Amino acid sequence: MDYVYGPGRNHLFVPGPVNIPEPVIRAMNRNNEDYRSPAIPALTKTLLEDVKKIFKTTSGTPFIIPTTGTGAWESALTNTLSPGDCIISFLIGQFSLLWIDQQQRLGFNVDVVESEWGQGANLEVMASKLAADTAHSIKAICIVHNETATGVTNNLATVRRILDHYNHPALLLVDGVSSICALDFRMDEWGVDVALTGSQKALSLPTGMGILCASPKALEATKTAKSVRVFFDWNDYLKFYKLGTYWPYTPSIQLLYGLRAALDLIFEEGLENVIKRHNRLAKATRLAVEAWGLKNCAQKEEWYSDTVTAILVPPHIDSAEIVRRAWKRYNLSLGLGLNKVAGKVFRIGHLGNLNELQLLGCLAGVEMVLKDVGYPVKLGSGVAAACAYLQNTIPMIPSRI
Amino acid sequence: MDYVYGPGRNHLFVPGPVNIPEPVIRAMNRNNEDYRSPAIPALTKTLLEDVKKIFKTTSGTPFIIPTTGTGAWESALTNTLSPGDCIISFLIGQFSLLWIDQQQRLGFNVDVVESEWGQGANLEVMASKLAADTAHSIKAICIVHNETATGVTNNLATVRRILDHYNHPALLLVDGVSSICALDFRMDEWGVDVALTGSQKALSLPTGMGILCASPKALEATKTAKSVRVFFDWNDYLKFYKLGTYWPYTPSIQLLYGLRAALDLIFEEGLENVIKRHNRLAKATRLAVEAWGLKNCAQKEEWYSDTVTAILVPPHIDSAEIVRRAWKRYNLSLGLGLNKVAGKVFRIGHLGNLNELQLLGCLAGVEMVLKDVGYPVKLGSGVAAACAYLQNTIPMIPSRI
Amino acid sequence: MDYVYGPGRNHLFVPGPVNIPEPVIRAMNRNNEDYRSPAIPALTKTLLEDVKKIFKTTSGTPFIIPTTGTGAWESALTNTLSPGDCIISFLIGQFSLLWIDQQQRLGFNVDVVESEWGQGANLEVMASKLAADTAHSIKAICIVHNETATGVTNNLATVRRILDHYNHPALLLVDGVSSICALDFRMDEWGVDVALTGSQKALSLPTGMGILCASPKALEATKTAKSVRVFFDWNDYLKFYKLGTYWPYTPSIQLLYGLRAALDLIFEEGLENVIKRHNRLAKATRLAVEAWGLKNCAQKEEWYSDTVTAILVPPHIDSAEIVRRAWKRYNLSLGLGLNKVAGKVFRIGHLGNLNELQLLGCLAGVEMVLKDVGYPVKLGSGVAAACAYLQNTIPMIPSRI
Amino acid sequence: MDYVYGPGRNHLFVPGPVNIPEPVIRAMNRNNEDYRSPAIPALTKTLLEDVKKIFKTTSGTPFIIPTTGTGAWESALTNTLSPGDCIISFLIGQFSLLWIDQQQRLGFNVDVVESEWGQGANLEVMASKLAADTAHSIKAICIVHNETATGVTNNLATVRRILDHYNHPALLLVDGVSSICALDFRMDEWGVDVALTGSQKALSLPTGMGILCASPKALEATKTAKSVRVFFDWNDYLKFYKLGTYWPYTPSIQLLYGLRAALDLIFEEGLENVIKRHNRLAKATRLAVEAWGLKNCAQKEEWYSDTVTAILVPPHIDSAEIVRRAWKRYNLSLGLGLNKVAGKVFRIGHLGNLNELQLLGCLAGVEMVLKDVGYPVKLGSGVAAACAYLQNTIPMIPSRI
Repeated sequence: MDYVYGPGRNHLFVPGPVNIPEPVIRAMNRNNEDYRSPAIPALTKTLLEDVKKIFKTTSGTPFIIPTTGTGAWESALTNTLSPGDCIISFLIGQFSLLWIDQQQRLGFNVDVVESEWGQGANLEVMASKLAADTAHSIKAICIVHNETATGVTNNLATVRRILDHYNHPALLLVDGVSSICALDFRMDEWGVDVALTGSQKALSLPTGMGILCASPKALEATKTAKSVRVFFDWNDYLKFYKLGTYWPYTPSIQLLYGLRAALDLIFEEGLENVIKRHNRLAKATRLAVEAWGLKNCAQKEEWYSDTVTAILVPPHIDSAEIVRRAWKRYNLSLGLGLNKVAGKVFRIGHLGNLNELQLLGCLAGVEMVLKDVGYPVKLGSGVAAACAYLQNTIPMIPSRI
Repeated sequence: MDYVYGPGRNHLFVPGPVNIPEPVIRAMNRNNEDYRSPAIPALTKTLLEDVKKIFKTTSGTPFIIPTTGTGAWESALTNTLSPGDCIISFLIGQFSLLWIDQQQRLGFNVDVVESEWGQGANLEVMASKLAADTAHSIKAICIVHNETATGVTNNLATVRRILDHYNHPALLLVDGVSSICALDFRMDEWGVDVALTGSQKALSLPTGMGILCASPKALEATKTAKSVRVFFDWNDYLKFYKLGTYWPYTPSIQLLYGLRAALDLIFEEGLENVIKRHNRLAKATRLAVEAWGLKNCAQKEEWYSDTVTAILVPPHIDSAEIVRRAWKRYNLSLGLGLNKVAGKVFRIGHLGNLNELQLLGCLAGVEMVLKDVGYPVKLGSGVAAACAYLQNTIPMIPSRI
Repeated sequence: MDYVYGPGRNHLFVPGPVNIPEPVIRAMNRNNEDYRSPAIPALTKTLLEDVKKIFKTTSGTPFIIPTTGTGAWESALTNTLSPGDCIISFLIGQFSLLWIDQQQRLGFNVDVVESEWGQGANLEVMASKLAADTAHSIKAICIVHNETATGVTNNLATVRRILDHYNHPALLLVDGVSSICALDFRMDEWGVDVALTGSQKALSLPTGMGILCASPKALEATKTAKSVRVFFDWNDYLKFYKLGTYWPYTPSIQLLYGLRAALDLIFEEGLENVIKRHNRLAKATRLAVEAWGLKNCAQKEEWYSDTVTAILVPPHIDSAEIVRRAWKRYNLSLGLGLNKVAGKVFRIGHLGNLNELQLLGCLAGVEMVLKDVGYPVKLGSGVAAACAYLQNTIPMIPSRI
Repeated sequence: MDYVYGPGRNHLFVPGPVNIPEPVIRAMNRNNEDYRSPAIPALTKTLLEDVKKIFKTTSGTPFIIPTTGTGAWESALTNTLSPGDCIISFLIGQFSLLWIDQQQRLGFNVDVVESEWGQGANLEVMASKLAADTAHSIKAICIVHNETATGVTNNLATVRRILDHYNHPALLLVDGVSSICALDFRMDEWGVDVALTGSQKALSLPTGMGILCASPKALEATKTAKSVRVFFDWNDYLKFYKLGTYWPYTPSIQLLYGLRAALDLIFEEGLENVIKRHNRLAKATRLAVEAWGLKNCAQKEEWYSDTVTAILVPPHIDSAEIVRRAWKRYNLSLGLGLNKVAGKVFRIGHLGNLNELQLLGCLAGVEMVLKDVGYPVKLGSGVAAACAYLQNTIPMIPSRI
């Protein structure tokens, strides 16, 4: 089973699934339980209350669905929209592409606003489209907060400002899969109608839970949304919320206890500190990239992602070879370049329960791989640049002062 | 978190989620991994091959979907049928009811064949409907192999015989959630077109995987099936099967290793021995029920389920009180009566990784609860009846001879 | 590795090592840590304080030694006595025999007071010896609180009364391996000078910690005790207690966290409730034995052990065959008869984190094994007798009311 | 309990207890078992055979004792020697000092050969003492293979050569606590009579097992050795080896399964590859130390340890502050300077289940700590030096080629 065993720990730096903290692994190390006993609903109640905090919403209604991010996407769309509805969606990388593909297959009329991969969503185009849409035929804006394939973060506050500027009632549906719980995300303040994430990303759990929050406006939209849905139907959840039993079908007992532990760790660290830590690790990574003489796939600083950095390699190097070699020689797991940027970028995921020395081990590993594949990196250069920044920035661990 | 802690083990006898064997808990006690490294596809390949064995199919195509049984149902229907299609579906208990509800909400034209709860599917009615359907407008027969709410098992071999008798081309879609890997199930021999189960049932894993097999005829049907589907679309899987990367979206690493361990245990015991063990535990349970002077909800022996026994209580007793008390006093988790049989039955799940002494502890507990709620049970009577049978029947543990 | 796998749980009813509760298994599921960081001493401090509670001592000094019960014995003796010292020791079964063997090999002058196996310590003989010893040449009374081989509990309060009656200054050294945390044990009230237990008994942990408490008088005795000791020398511990680093050599990180969890569970249940639970399980077992027409190895009720019951089998039956068969057919682990009672008794351990339904499963299993080996037991009879008692006695689980 | 939680993994670089590999943590994640069933002896048999391989002995007899390294020391001495026996012992650091202290307290006549801390055992002095001892009054040479406090490895082959040169019959007793399974160690070839290690060192397990091998000559010596011993008496083990039940008292079930898994991993990697990996990590560490402009506590290359590097800091810096700060700010656990070198050295343990990127993360962390405490390190310099060596040296992971 472990036929690919290598000594020491695997260095997991794909942008998901990410490293699970030991206390969470422990919490999930358990037998099944009857989910209809009083224990599980009582636990669930605390989870539903607490996930709202990581979305920064008080008015939203949370749903924890036994699915992946792809399922959470489908849930967001089918509960709020009807086939044929006009929606605006931004194509800026592989994950926004997949979401758009889903939107089209679900029968929506998708107005795709495309950018070069490495750029953020073109909000000017959106603004002009909204301006023109005085009939309010556009029913939703669908946007990926953080495009995991290119390491590009979109500015959701601006999206909201534009919508407000035109007094446009379109729903704002946000894929926060690689952002929520790691980047600054403010559901209520930014007027997000549906936000979603997956358990295996910044929450640092195994895959298996799609977590969404729906605004009151989104819930209202469910009443007229004609998209066919059963497994993903929020109404089945709402019915069981009222009953106090919470689950229309069997949840994963292990993931519920895991989520409890994960949230406890996040609250112990403090959500703002978690976000700062992600920023710190990301900046250190970018400084290393610069020191190596390589380029960030994200073309402008405003788009730089604090959860994943996609790194462009020179044309004569195949980035897939970097990823392969990292795993085969250094027990280091990096992210591949996908689709349009396949072979051209490799990715360092720096999200979830991670600290600086873990990242520095990764950066040292990347330097060696780069040398392996013929890129003339100065060994130690990236680590030096990252350390120079980190040594000035890392706070003391509060519980240890 | 464990605020409902009671000393000793919880005695888990709900018909799902069921007890997870220690080796499986161990196998899942791990960090995440990159599912795009060569390791996970190699593991997945063995899993897809091996799940076919528990369905007893060689020609079927397996799908392991990160969802629950409800999602697996949806997957079976939407990949093979189109809205408006006529299907026959049997209503014999809460789970067949829920599936029918889903079928209706997905837009199929459902011809519901209802039986009294406690009876099996009315196959005579089906036969007459098939006989009348010379135009072959009936596109599918949907049947729950084992109705978990009433402990009733339907005869799938007969279903197939009837279909063959009339040379009817309807697809045969089977919910094997509480049967596959516990009851005798023969996908190929019985000409089942889609069969499905969930990881938290007889496979004895956590919730989180819907496992299906589709016959060549079912795969052919996907080409014309017009039901909207994205997350549940088999084609996305087939595309990745060809690529050899297997996963269109992130699977649960833990469940994959858990499934590997679960299958290893099943093959070590031998699937036929697993099925015999379920039969043995079920017979012992039924003998206890008889000794207590109570009635099986399943009205005839031909329908008796070997995975769950629903037990009718006298009218003056509330079966929900039995379940509550079992948990609160004896750390025993029993199944509630659902819907039409709420308050009237309680259920003992005897499926999954379970042995005789575990069951006997449960039966002794049930006797005490019965006495608690005022039923004049003779303490020890059920255990005595069960032991008399088991002591003659239990084989030596092969690895210990 | 698991080549002796059998389906379902192993039913562990040897009198040690006993079942570990899931929360404790979880707490131990962890990597190593630096035991010289501030974290481990802080944890240790709480453990040392809290183990005193399970010994019911406030004036005692606790030691947690990385060893087994055998090592804890050696530690108790060598820290307080000198070679050639006269001590009284009671031989009533295999474990008292082994302790006496150790005492002799350590060079003490052991006055062995022997009883028939199945009887308690002969305290009258002790009384007469103390009466005669006006010169106070007897330095210590060594007594096993609960003889695990025969299921016999000695009356420590009486021992103390006799010592006090004669104003005899002998140290009172008590093996509480199968009693502390399960039977009523009162170190301070009974004037016990050294009491000891092992982690794998009523504390329900893995083997690996010998836990002792020493009275001020015992600590005083260390100053003149000439027995050679290094690994087991309490002074090395006391030195590190003063330094606040606690550990003269590396402890098991996992067992420390496990002990924390185990104590938390005991305090949550309440030590008095834990003791009552052991009494309840023991009485139920004895009622079953009676119903089977078999005899308790402990000859009088005053000696009946609440942690282990040794059961005499008829002469034509080999009790070892019962134990073998229980494991090979029923996945049930019972205790063998040892030494003088080999072949004559088998033992049911009912100590540690265990509840009633677990015990009833065991009792049902024993009935079937008895039948297997030709003993004419009435199946269900023992369970019936136990249930009749338990159904009147088991309290509601406090956290679930 | 985890009140000192910090985000991400703890970077454990103390020279014991060391990082436990995930497969070993998994193997230990289990309930207790009856150690008298056939399963545990069968498992034990494989363990005893296989631990001999890591000692490189075929003629030795292995003992696995539930104790720590300190207990293993005591076991080695008391089983082979008598009080008053003359022995030669080398004082070169804290752990050899502690062993000598034990030897003296056990009543041996210890001829202490002292070296400056940072130097190896003075074998010339030993040679002259052996030369003078024509009466063969010296009964044993006691030597620590690898002094963990100073990172100094002694040359055991030379010790054997000298003994042979003088045809001296003294026993050769070796503390291999921080060497066996990491450094080149050859029990049979070097004529070692007793060698010992602890589970929490290169075997990468929790603390709790002292593992020894005794040569036929050592076993012969037990017959005349008059040291008092009971818990540590090898004869009790040998008696149970003959019975085939192996254990004179309760072993830790978890550690047995853990040892099985640990040995499996070592054999999968190949013991020679494990040793090479330790050499590689150690060289990388030494190159970093040099790049930082610091000195190795081990004064000559011949003594450099491949399992731990003690690093001298400039006089104005307190090495304890380095260790404190590493833990409090970087979640990095380093080894303190002990006794004579307290405040003067800090230690990097690089033994056990560890890989290069883990070490590089540690080295980057050390650089930042050094800067924190005012040492003018050039950030990245040590990592660069280590990487330059490693990138040329690390082999592909065999299972992944």
